[in-house]
Amino acid sequence: MADLSRIRALSFDIFGTTVDWCSGVARDAEQMLGARGYQLDWIAFANRWRSEYQPAMDGVRSGKRGYVTMDTLHREMLEAVLPEFSVSDLTEADKDELAHAWRRLDPWPDVLSGMQRLKSRFILAAVSNANFSLAVAMAKRAGLPWDVILGSQLVQTYKPMAPVYDSVPASLDLEPGQVMMVACHVWDLDAARSRGLSTAFIPRPDEYGPGKSGPAAEPGAYDIVAADFNDLARQLGA
Amino acid sequence: MADLSRIRALSFDIFGTTVDWCSGVARDAEQMLGARGYQLDWIAFANRWRSEYQPAMDGVRSGKRGYVTMDTLHREMLEAVLPEFSVSDLTEADKDELAHAWRRLDPWPDVLSGMQRLKSRFILAAVSNANFSLAVAMAKRAGLPWDVILGSQLVQTYKPMAPVYDSVPASLDLEPGQVMMVACHVWDLDAARSRGLSTAFIPRPDEYGPGKSGPAAEPGAYDIVAADFNDLARQLGA
Repeated sequence: MADLSRIRALSFDIFGTTVDWCSGVARDAEQMLGARGYQLDWIAFANRWRSEYQPAMDGVRSGKRGYVTMDTLHREMLEAVLPEFSVSDLTEADKDELAHAWRRLDPWPDVLSGMQRLKSRFILAAVSNANFSLAVAMAKRAGLPWDVILGSQLVQTYKPMAPVYDSVPASLDLEPGQVMMVACHVWDLDAARSRGLSTAFIPRPDEYGPGKSGPAAEPGAYDIVAADFNDLARQLGA
Repeated sequence: MADLSRIRALSFDIFGTTVDWCSGVARDAEQMLGARGYQLDWIAFANRWRSEYQPAMDGVRSGKRGYVTMDTLHREMLEAVLPEFSVSDLTEADKDELAHAWRRLDPWPDVLSGMQRLKSRFILAAVSNANFSLAVAMAKRAGLPWDVILGSQLVQTYKPMAPVYDSVPASLDLEPGQVMMVACHVWDLDAARSRGLSTAFIPRPDEYGPGKSGPAAEPGAYDIVAADFNDLARQLGA
């Protein structure tokens, strides 16, 4: 286990860990498509869209294609999903607008209060697959008090590739163990740990819709398991 | 002149424009060296240190040396200055601590109120020669409400090289003219303008000490000349 008193910076995953993408994307899809008469399972629509997330990044991660932003990938992913839901009458501008639903996501209820507590003691870094403009737009709308936005665009590849994690201590002049990756996804934390970062797992039991979470943490796998961001602050003495 | 209604992001210079490096460095130097019995002209000491700033970056800008951080350059610059002031009894740790005086600088009196006004309407980006960790440490101490920190470390070279300016609209998904560079230095604004950015000049009449400013703006050279950050907010309708 890490010596928690060494931690100087917290590097947060965004989608799922910090913000509720599923209900937010479902809401915006319903708003735009519902107004056109579509009656879909909006949560299923959001999840189907998100299911394109990992495959969409593979081209960049493998080097087969140069870096393109997450905004661009969200837009491309949408093209695969719309026909499956028989949505065929959107303009290009409509699709661009809908793809920006991923910028208009709300934080989980514990996030803002927890981050304010943590901010007085730690550097709060966004370390996400979101590009700068997506992360900035989301933070301004939601009030997320990042000290710095690092992550995929800085190193031109996507998590869980090592350069994303390595760039955090390098950018902040810290040892890897002085940075704690905070996420609700074990694949993200496992990769961070393999690069020497400390790790905190936050379960998000409703990530994929009410009562639908991703894989739980294996006991002992991470330095901290916290119920939410306020509990993380408590465990870190903030 | 730029159409000011197009502006979406303000990219701020830090040293001189946002924070008062001269009095801050003089204060920290006096604190450390005064306690050891030195009686120097502290403003002169700060200015002499800063005078190494442009030459120190030349190696990186020319490509003769790989990117090193501004913290590193501040530390190297100090070595050139100490003997001239007959300071010879500092440990390496002392010098490291003194070099971090450049992280402990106070904003000019108009800065925090002006930035808060501007933040509700624009993306506030730090676009400085400061490295991430320097800019983060300064912002946390001083309360600077950046939305995003871009600048030299992102592109591994220093202003006024074109990649620093080009990276701002590229990172924020904006056209160059939608970004306004805000600085008290004409060399910085001239370079930003040559890359298509909009420009705002803020005179800092005490940058180099009481009553000692850098070169004034040529009439008509920049899109805005504002007395301070609050006046900039007023002129931009924020």
